Parts: sequence; C-alpha cells; structure tokens
Amino acid sequence: MTPESAKAALRDQTIELPSWAFGNSGTRFKVFGQPGVPRDPYEKLADAAQVHRYTGIAPRVSLHIPWDLVDDFSDLSRHAADLGVTIGMINSNVFQDDDYMLGSLCHPDAAVRRKAVDHHKQCVDVMRATGSAHLKVWLADGLNYPGQDSIRARQDRLAESLAEIYAALDEDQRMVLEYKFFEPAFYSTDVPDWGTSLLHCMALGDRADVVLDTGHHAPGTNIEFIVAQLLRQGRLGAFDFNSRFYADDDLMVGAADPFQLFRIMHEIVQAGALAPDSGVNFMLDQCHNIEPKIPGQIRSVMNVQEATAKALLVDADALAAAQRAGDVLGAHGVLMDAYNTDTRPLLAELREEQGLDPDPMSAYAASGYAEKIAAERIGGAQAGWGA
Amino acid sequence: MTPESAKAALRDQTIELPSWAFGNSGTRFKVFGQPGVPRDPYEKLADAAQVHRYTGIAPRVSLHIPWDLVDDFSDLSRHAADLGVTIGMINSNVFQDDDYMLGSLCHPDAAVRRKAVDHHKQCVDVMRATGSAHLKVWLADGLNYPGQDSIRARQDRLAESLAEIYAALDEDQRMVLEYKFFEPAFYSTDVPDWGTSLLHCMALGDRADVVLDTGHHAPGTNIEFIVAQLLRQGRLGAFDFNSRFYADDDLMVGAADPFQLFRIMHEIVQAGALAPDSGVNFMLDQCHNIEPKIPGQIRSVMNVQEATAKALLVDADALAAAQRAGDVLGAHGVLMDAYNTDTRPLLAELREEQGLDPDPMSAYAASGYAEKIAAERIGGAQAGWGA
Amino acid sequence: MTPESAKAALRDQTIELPSWAFGNSGTRFKVFGQPGVPRDPYEKLADAAQVHRYTGIAPRVSLHIPWDLVDDFSDLSRHAADLGVTIGMINSNVFQDDDYMLGSLCHPDAAVRRKAVDHHKQCVDVMRATGSAHLKVWLADGLNYPGQDSIRARQDRLAESLAEIYAALDEDQRMVLEYKFFEPAFYSTDVPDWGTSLLHCMALGDRADVVLDTGHHAPGTNIEFIVAQLLRQGRLGAFDFNSRFYADDDLMVGAADPFQLFRIMHEIVQAGALAPDSGVNFMLDQCHNIEPKIPGQIRSVMNVQEATAKALLVDADALAAAQRAGDVLGAHGVLMDAYNTDTRPLLAELREEQGLDPDPMSAYAASGYAEKIAAERIGGAQAGWGA
Amino acid sequence: MTPESAKAALRDQTIELPSWAFGNSGTRFKVFGQPGVPRDPYEKLADAAQVHRYTGIAPRVSLHIPWDLVDDFSDLSRHAADLGVTIGMINSNVFQDDDYMLGSLCHPDAAVRRKAVDHHKQCVDVMRATGSAHLKVWLADGLNYPGQDSIRARQDRLAESLAEIYAALDEDQRMVLEYKFFEPAFYSTDVPDWGTSLLHCMALGDRADVVLDTGHHAPGTNIEFIVAQLLRQGRLGAFDFNSRFYADDDLMVGAADPFQLFRIMHEIVQAGALAPDSGVNFMLDQCHNIEPKIPGQIRSVMNVQEATAKALLVDADALAAAQRAGDVLGAHGVLMDAYNTDTRPLLAELREEQGLDPDPMSAYAASGYAEKIAAERIGGAQAGWGA
Repeated sequence: MTPESAKAALRDQTIELPSWAFGNSGTRFKVFGQPGVPRDPYEKLADAAQVHRYTGIAPRVSLHIPWDLVDDFSDLSRHAADLGVTIGMINSNVFQDDDYMLGSLCHPDAAVRRKAVDHHKQCVDVMRATGSAHLKVWLADGLNYPGQDSIRARQDRLAESLAEIYAALDEDQRMVLEYKFFEPAFYSTDVPDWGTSLLHCMALGDRADVVLDTGHHAPGTNIEFIVAQLLRQGRLGAFDFNSRFYADDDLMVGAADPFQLFRIMHEIVQAGALAPDSGVNFMLDQCHNIEPKIPGQIRSVMNVQEATAKALLVDADALAAAQRAGDVLGAHGVLMDAYNTDTRPLLAELREEQGLDPDPMSAYAASGYAEKIAAERIGGAQAGWGA
Repeated sequence: MTPESAKAALRDQTIELPSWAFGNSGTRFKVFGQPGVPRDPYEKLADAAQVHRYTGIAPRVSLHIPWDLVDDFSDLSRHAADLGVTIGMINSNVFQDDDYMLGSLCHPDAAVRRKAVDHHKQCVDVMRATGSAHLKVWLADGLNYPGQDSIRARQDRLAESLAEIYAALDEDQRMVLEYKFFEPAFYSTDVPDWGTSLLHCMALGDRADVVLDTGHHAPGTNIEFIVAQLLRQGRLGAFDFNSRFYADDDLMVGAADPFQLFRIMHEIVQAGALAPDSGVNFMLDQCHNIEPKIPGQIRSVMNVQEATAKALLVDADALAAAQRAGDVLGAHGVLMDAYNTDTRPLLAELREEQGLDPDPMSAYAASGYAEKIAAERIGGAQAGWGA
Repeated sequence: MTPESAKAALRDQTIELPSWAFGNSGTRFKVFGQPGVPRDPYEKLADAAQVHRYTGIAPRVSLHIPWDLVDDFSDLSRHAADLGVTIGMINSNVFQDDDYMLGSLCHPDAAVRRKAVDHHKQCVDVMRATGSAHLKVWLADGLNYPGQDSIRARQDRLAESLAEIYAALDEDQRMVLEYKFFEPAFYSTDVPDWGTSLLHCMALGDRADVVLDTGHHAPGTNIEFIVAQLLRQGRLGAFDFNSRFYADDDLMVGAADPFQLFRIMHEIVQAGALAPDSGVNFMLDQCHNIEPKIPGQIRSVMNVQEATAKALLVDADALAAAQRAGDVLGAHGVLMDAYNTDTRPLLAELREEQGLDPDPMSAYAASGYAEKIAAERIGGAQAGWGA
Repeated sequence: MTPESAKAALRDQTIELPSWAFGNSGTRFKVFGQPGVPRDPYEKLADAAQVHRYTGIAPRVSLHIPWDLVDDFSDLSRHAADLGVTIGMINSNVFQDDDYMLGSLCHPDAAVRRKAVDHHKQCVDVMRATGSAHLKVWLADGLNYPGQDSIRARQDRLAESLAEIYAALDEDQRMVLEYKFFEPAFYSTDVPDWGTSLLHCMALGDRADVVLDTGHHAPGTNIEFIVAQLLRQGRLGAFDFNSRFYADDDLMVGAADPFQLFRIMHEIVQAGALAPDSGVNFMLDQCHNIEPKIPGQIRSVMNVQEATAKALLVDADALAAAQRAGDVLGAHGVLMDAYNTDTRPLLAELREEQGLDPDPMSAYAASGYAEKIAAERIGGAQAGWGA
C-alpha cells in the first residue's frame, strides 16, 4: 500500500480506552497511588478525553460496572459528549463480591449464579442508558485445586447462565466473551482459550463474539494465528490490547514485543478488518502500575498506530507473489521491509494534516494537565480496582 | 467405585499400540539403534503382540503409511490375527517426501496438495484392505518465518483438502484429526490447537473427531480441561498418549507427570468414556529413544492402567457432595485419596484372574524374547521413521 | 531404606510455617476474607501451633516484618514457647512502602537504598530479640519496561546494599537470599534465578545461602537439578515450599505436581540433607486464597511428609546398581516403585507412635478450634499482606 | 551516539559463521536436501566466504569435529586464507557415536568418559593445526527419565572430565562451555543453565567462559539480563545467535523477536563489549531447514548489524538521566527511539564506504553463485549433521 493509502486507512482507525486504566492498579503485593488519579467516572472520562485530544483516534471509553456506577448514566453520557468522547463497551464484574469466591456464572450454588446473571442484566440496563452496543464478559471463574469442582459441570452451568444473559440483550446489542489462560484461578479456568469462548458464542447465536486479550495466552502461543482463525469464522469481536513478557502482565501494548503487534495488525489488514465497519473493536486493557496513566495510554495508542502503519505498508502483491512461489526468504523479506520501516514520520504528517500536534507525548506534557489534576484532585478516594 | 467394580471396568479397557514405537527413533541429533529392532511391519506386529501377551489390554496396532506399506495387507491382517492382535488406525504421512518441504494439505501449490490428498486416499484403501475403521491425520504443515505464507489462506486450503479426503471415506469409516502446538514448524502450525481441529471436524461432518496427543500443547495447558470439553462436544476421537517435560518429548506416558495422567483419566471416567463403545480410542504414541522398546511399551500400558484404576477408585458420591458444598479441601481430598492409593496390587490381582502374570515387566524379561530377536534379526534395515 | 529406618528419619524432620499463611491473601483481583483469621502476630502463632499440635513436625514459625511487628518481641517469643513453637526466620519486606515503587536495594536513588538497608538492620534487631538465626531476603526489585533502568547498575547497587546488610549480622546469624523468575516486576527481575542469588551469596561470604521457592521458576525448569546443584555447592539455605500450575501460584505444596515434590525430596535424601544439622530449612510459603488456612497448612505439611517418606523408601542400592549398569528402565523403575507406594499408613503409624492422632486433618476438624476462633475473633482488622 | 560514531563502531564488528549452517539440517521428522549444498569442509568454507564477501563482517568460520575432519588442516587453513577468511572456534561433538547414548563427559561408565575426553584432546590438536584459539564445548548429556542416573554424580563426573580437557589446553587457548535448557535430553540436562556453566568455568580457571546460545532458555527467560550478568562476571565468552518462537528452533537470528536482539546488543554496547578486544565472540548457530543457506546467513548477519546499529544509536546520556530520575516512560522512550529508527540506510552507507554493495542480499542473488554451485556440486554426499 502506498503511504497515501496508508494514511487514509489510518485516518479511519479508532481505539477504545478502558476507564480503569486511569485509576490505580497494581499487583497482589502493592498498589502504588499516583498524584491526580480520578476519584469518579466523570474524572476518568476527562482523562480519557485527553488521550483522544492528542491522538485523535481514541473517541470511546469502556466502562466497568460496578466500578463506574453513577446515579445518572444519561448525565455521564452527556459529560462524555461534552468532552468529545462516547461510552463504549460495558464490562461486567463478577469477581469482587464475597459471594464469588468459588465462581460466578459457573458457581455450584444456583443462588450465586442467579446473582451473577442478574448483575449482567443490570449491565444491560447500563447499556440502554448509555447507548452502548456491547456487553463485555470476562469471568474470573475457575478452580485452584484438582477435584475442587467438576470441570464439565461448570461448562454446563456456564452455557445456561450465558444463554439467559444473551436472551436479555436487545436486538441491536451484542455480547463479547473474553478468554484467559489463568489468573486468578490457578488450576483450571472456565473460559481458558479461544476454542471455549468460540463454542459458547456459537451456541448463543449470531450476536456473540470472542474477545482476544493479547496477554491471555500460554507461553509461545501464536496470537496472530488466532486472530486469523477468528476472522475466518467471523467471530472476532474485540481486542484487549496490552503486552507481556511472562503472564497477564498488562504492560503497555507494543512495549514487550512490537514485532508481534505488527504481525497481529498484518492479519487484520490482510483480512480487511481494520475498516470501521469490520465489527472488530480495538481496545486497550492495561495497568499502568508504575508509569503515569495518561501518557501511558497515549504511548500505547501511538504504538498501535505505528504497528498499523507498518502493516498497511506491506507490499501485498509482492508478498503474495513470493508466497505463491514458495520463496521463503523473499516472502519473509517483504514483511520485514515493512516492519523495519520507521512509520513515525508518516504518523507525524498525518497528525499535522488532522490539526494535531505531531508529537502527542510532548504536547500532552506541555499542556500542564498533569500538574492541574495533581493540584486539583485533593481529597476523596482515588479510583482503583477495589469494589 | 468399589475395587470389584473398578476391576470390571479395567477388564474392558483397551489400549492401541503404534507400530512405529517398535522401530528406531531419536532426535535431530542422533537416532541410536537397538538390537533386535524389527525390519518390517510383520516383525513390528510380532513385537506389539508381546505387549498384549503380557498385559492383556493391547489388542490393536496402528499402522503408519508408507512406513508400514506391504504388498498384501490381507496377509498382514492374517498375520496379526495369528498373533492375537488386529490392525487399528491407519496413520497418513505427508511430511517426508521432498515435495512436502513447505507443507502438504496446506501447500501453496495445488499440485502438492493433490499429491497429499491422493496419499490419504491410498490410506483409505489400506483401511479397506485391513478392516481399519479410522484414518488418523497429523500434519507437519506450518511456517518457520513470519510472512512465509498466508496463515488464513492455508486454513482455506486445509478445509478444502480435508473435505476431499473425508468424501473418500466409506460410511463406516471415520477421520480423526490431530493438532500440535509446534514442531516441525517453528513459527506457525496449521492445526496448532484443539479449537482449530474441532472447527475443521465440525465443518466436515459427524464422522470426524479430534485426536488429543498429550505432548502437543503449550507449557502449562490444562489438558484435562480439553478432554472434558471435547467429550462435552462428543468429538474426542482418540488419545495419543505419551509424556513430556518440555516440548513433544514423546516419553513414556505417566513418566513425567503421573498426576496429570490420573486427572485425564478422571475426566474420562466421570464422563463414562472408558467404556468400549465410547468412541474414544486410547492409543500410545511414543519414542523409546534410549530405553528398550517392548518393555517401554509394557511399562506405558501399565502406567495407563494404574492411573485408570486410581480414577475408577474415586469416591464419586463423596466428591460430588463436597463439590456441591463448596468444600475446597474436602473435594480435593477425595480426589487425592484415590490418587494416593497404590493400585498395583489391584492390577496384579486382576491379571491373575485373567490368567496373566501379575508382573508383566518381569514376565517379559524372563521370556527370553528380547534375546531371541536380538539374535535372529540380523541383516536387513532396522525400521525407523525414515521414509 | 527400610520402613523402620524411614520412620526414624521422619521423626527428625521439621517444617517451618509462615506466619502470613494464617492471614488473608489473594490476587490483584480480590482478597477474600475468612472467618476467624488472626488479627495480630499472637493469634497467628496460636494458629500455627495448631498445625504443630496435629502434625508434630512444624515447631517453628517465620515472621514477616513489618507485618509481624510487635512492641515486645521477647513477649512474643514467650508466647510462642507457651504454645510449643519457636520463632524461625525473619523475613524483610521492602516492597510495600510508597518509596519502593521503583525498587529497594537496587533503587537508582541512594536515599531509598539507605532506607531499605536500614529496614534490614531493623530486621536484624528483631532476630536478636527473638533469637532467630536467619535473615530471609526476598526482593520485589525489578523493571516493567526495557530501558527503565540499567540492569547492570542495579546488580552493582544490589551487591553494595547486601554487603552492608551482611556486615550488620552477628557471627551466629546468617542471610538467605531468595530468587524469583518474575512478579511483581514484569520485564526484568533483579534476582531472577539461582545463579544470580548464588553469585551474590558467594560474594558476601560463608554465611549467605540461597532460598529456593518452588514456585519461582520459568515453565519447565527442572527444580531438583537446582536442588542438587545448590547442595553440591553447600549453598542451599532454605526451601519455600508451595506448588504451581502456571506462575507463582502459591498453592499448597504437593497439590499441583506431587511427583516433582518427591523428586526434590529424593535429591535431599540422596545428599543426606534431610538431617536436622544439614543447614537446609524446609519452609512453607503459600497462599490459602480460597481454602481454610489451618487445614491448608496441615495438608501441606502432610504432603511434604508423604513425599519425604517415599523418597526415604527408595532402594538406594538397587537404584545405584541400575544407574551404573545404564539400565534406563530399571533405574527409573526403582524410583517409581517408591513413588507409587502409599506412604499414608506408614505415617499414620509414626504419628501413633508419637502420641498423635493418625489423621491430623480429621483430628483438627473435630477439635472445634475453627469454630472457636470464628466465634471469638470478632472486631479488629484481619491480618493480611497489607503493610 | 552519533551516526558517525556508530558507523565507526560497526566497522570493527565481526560475526563468526558456523560451517554446519551451509550443510543440510532438519528436524527429527525430515532433513530436506537443497541443491548446491557442500560435500566437504572446503566447499563449506567457500560458501561462508560468500557471506563475508557481501557483508564484510564475517571473516571467521567455526568448525565442527568430526563433521569437518580433513586430512590436512594446514591445507584447510590455507584454503580459508585464500578465500579471505580464517578458522574460528573448534566445536567438539560427543553426541553421535553409539557409545554416547547415555552421555559423554557425564556418562556413568568411565570408559565412555575417557573416549569423550580424548575426543576433546583431538579437538585441541585441530586447534593447534588451524591456529584456532577456542575450544567450544556443547554437550548433549542428560537424562530422559527420573532416576535414570544420579543428577549429582553426573555433575561430579562433568567437573572431572572438564578439568582434564582444560589441562590439555595450551596457555593461549581457551575453553568456552555452552548451556542448554533441554534437547536432546528430555528430563534433565547436565549443563542446563548459565549458572551451571559459570560454576564449572570458575572451577576450571581464568581461561574458561560461558557460551550463550539465544535459543537455549526456558520460555520467558530474560536473556539480556544473563548477558549483563555474565559481562559483569567477565565470563561471557561467545554468543550462539539464532532465534526461536518455541524451543531451540534455530531460526535466523532476529527473525522471531528483533526487539530482543536489540536489547541484547544494547547490553553489549552499554558494557563496551562490542569492541574487538572484548573477548566476546559473536557467532551464528542456526539451521536453514527450508530456506537457502547462504542467503539465510547473509540475512542473519544483516539482522545482527541492524540491531547493533540501533543499540549504538541509543542516546546514552539521555537514557542515564531519565533512569536516574526514575522517569519510567522517559527512559523507556529513549530506548524505543533508537529501536524504532530504521538503520538500513546507515548500513547501506557504511557498506558503500567499504566498497561493498549496499544491498548484500541482491548482490549475492545477482552473482550467480547459487546457480553455479547447484550446477557444479553433483555427486558425492551432501554435508549434514550426520556423523
């Protein structure tokens, strides 16, 4: 693709931000607070809007319920609109109530499953109130010890619970189901892989898709293969972008293995799934445990953009020709040529054309926003993962 | 289950042996030969029959084509019958011809795919000639370098190739499709996980099932979860049993993680899938690189038996009660009680009831067979993986 | 070894308990509280003493500073003695103060390193006050992002900080240094492996040894090899026993891979390192996130005992003979014979000889202690990992 | 560093090539032959010289004994000199003789150890005959089954065997000892990690260093940490460069994770270890199973060069300042700025200054050498890993 065509495609790209990335996060060992962290969903949206302001491609914000519960979601939506962003996916949370110690939708006790299903129905209400089109389901359900519960029975309960939630969706609403290799369950996880997620989605119906979190796989897993496979099935609903060296480290996307991110975006571009109407939601899901959160998000958005630009620059014709010819080094070389290209100048140019500062990191740093929120947000409880 | 019920179930259990386990095998660094190794399929069957003779539960032998090509398969079948065994699954081999360097059923060149499909049709002919009911497909197809070929296009080619092979099967024949995480492809494998295998089987029809090789997963993968999931879908066609510490090490099953083998058999027993009519073929697929092959197979068969016996001894009622009650340690304890039981005495008793020696390893060692084949099998080329 | 000799060796075995196993623990997603959890170090010791009461082999309790800070450590030691236990190792904690966000002994800022060194000197004071002989150092130091700090410079700072701490020890005190593959740092950890820990210990002097936590390794790592290697160097100071399927899961030791635990104890027994004067401290370090804590500890202690008993039952002469002869299956078989033995009857017998109940789990359950502490420990803040 | 300084440093860089990369290689499943593959060490050197001819930085070739045994090593050295290259390290091979099935330097049988030690002495003779300064030792020694041999005793035998070999070296000769996580041993490897290799080197004396093969680690291992640690100990003797997604895949260096290669080279540059007199030998060790071998080597050399150039371009002052200030994103950003730079133009410029073609891949392709050797090298046995 020519640089001009690449820029055109980049102009249409959007990335969704998670509200919780702006709150505090950490490990089981310690959550370190940071100055200026939001105290409520309104402030989270304000911070997210900063990311959009400097990058121009982050116009939506995912909410997490109950972390982002407010009295009046219409008011929150208006607040978002005033800031130039909209509410994106609604994420349920059935892992922090004491009742969920042994699971939620898969729990052996029907009363706990009922409670967890009802929470999801509450999330659907939030979707209606905010105009959100997607219910995002990630479950912490699983087992720590062999024998603790029946792996098979939990699948049956999961199917039943999901069916009831799916039935509660309006016709124009969709469900996306995330899988995760492990954590917080340490022996068996109830939705551990893309295969399990896909089977449940297929059983539910056409409006259920898989969420691929780039940190939720076994060591060595070829993620771009899964991307290709889910696209082939028409069931890739969303990404949760982040990066990892070890487990679900939730580092900034592109920070651990930028070549992998490029390969993922290459599959996207090859399948024509970058287009706004592709049905794939490109979302971040990260923890800025030690780095400042707004710049962490800006940097992440830029990393995705740079990888996308490289993927767009792949000479698709030359690649296909070399592949057909069985020219291993030639085909690999075509791909690497694009990867080795420095796409930062192209993106700087694109931003200037869009009236943005070519360097979002510096522009944000110079804006004084970080100092302003640190000075103003005194008192109150900083937002975090706490229920 | 009571010990008596357990023995009844164990009496019905059968394990299929791979003909190639009796030939030489090794690593890319070296294949060490052993004295007495078979020179042809007839001798492989003779050795396999020894395993059945001393364990009583290994009445079938898988063949690998072209390694086990003979002029007259009816004659080979009669030879098997004379030895007290039958021909089991027919395994295709599309990874050793020079044409397959860049793949077989997924190869970019239609002529190579044609050749690979035709090889499978030849295997179906062998099935007809031997009365084998199952075509087992494992593919080495994959990529070593990003960009080398299109991941997505290869899936499409795979689907097309498999469909033609499936169509060539008789109504009473089935296909089983194996997946593998990696090796010999080192970047992307075309059937890398159970999800991919299952999707292709579902696309093919009711007579296609998944093969689970216990050594073909990413580090840390919970294999018993996959067993439970495939049983739930009614698509677990066969096991390739072996064990591993690192990659596809192909060590004797039960040698690396006997507790995992027990957990796998627990899922089998819980689902009632041990019964002969369950449709699950319990097969060994191993490499005895440094240990003698016949005793290696006997030991492996015994390991599966011991794990099965433990799984049968699980107090299912107590387990279910503890699981329902959310009693984590209690439920885990019920499972561990069975695992910690020494089932060797029970199996010795069972063998004596069946007229077998209670100690198959010693009985074989005392039989003089090893010495006999070492003395007799002089000259000729020892069988191995070589094409 | 004969069962009688094994029992003699088992009589001398001791296992140290961590005070923090009795407090609440969890994941970054949620810490679930449990009824009856201790509110202070005194209550932790009381619970630990229950484990010793029913197993007879857990007479020491490790403390974690500042979690276990009390005004009068002499009083705490007397309290321990009254309960029939003693204070074991003193564990430092330099990962929960806000100053330690970017490290402690390796921090780029000398003032933070000073603070962290001084904390360790305070721990040495606690050692003097409690009669503890060992300072146990585990550091959360590391990096989340490439480039964040200099890997090499951090090693230099670490060496300098450790030297100052080591110099503060009395002649009869020792330091043990733990390593960990990852977490909470997700890119680079400053003491990630046994090699790094050992190099620092060697640089410090004769009174510094390595701590091997069984959950702190890369996937697939052969832990018994490291045990053998550290014993060969005379530098295995202590174990932190727990088990894992994925990362540092901190499950009950023996719950995930009992065969691995047996292999570890086999190396210990072979090297004569089970003896009380071996210098190896066998300690538990676990998180009972969802199971009750006292029974979780009892079960863990029993798991170590059962594995030890199996290791003691290995026929060392037969094993050595088969190894010398290059008899792969024979040597493996000798080891497996011991592993496959059910050692629970032997241990029940041993307990009865020691005046203990043969079934510690049931005896504790019948004691009413769990109900008593649940009823009595009302009010106050439950202990946990929080600073 | 400025581009000019970077070019100066790049001018001094050298990379050693393995003779065996030009012969056939493959997996245990199949070795695919290629047209024009060398039939003897003379032809291997000729091919290696092509890599040097087009890149200008590959002036040395490692030999593997006995694969590269010739009658007259002086003649082979002259042949090398005529081609513009020299003989580099001498690699021993004690894994392909039938006697080595259960090990070599660690074998339980003293006679086998004697044979293996003597082979190394033969290699020292080759060093004298060729002027090679380094004996490179990689051992396939290890175990496939728990109990097969004593882990501890094998360490003792290894130490003794290495000491005898070390004693046979001349004063101006050095030994380098490689470690490997697993393969071909699948349970326990006798030199599995850098710690083990380093301990043996330290026991031997000042002229023994560690070899780091980038494909020889557990999943997730931070290799640049090990590089930094070995440099800090003054014991990094050599790299075996290659890349991997899964195990010891031996793909072209830089093909799987170019960012990791950059991080490794960053540690090298930071420590001043790129300089010719640093004592670190940068060597390739790869298998071109499906791609043509000479272009595969050229591409690999270029990948190392590009990563080195990026590492040289890191703004060391800005990096150190940000690290000192605890500016996580700033420090990471400085590193990423260098990584994101396209260094191909700089290297093209450098090559032109050196009188080389700016595009080595195209220049080689245009040279007709590949067609020439394919046409000429008819008859004879193609070189490979075979003993």
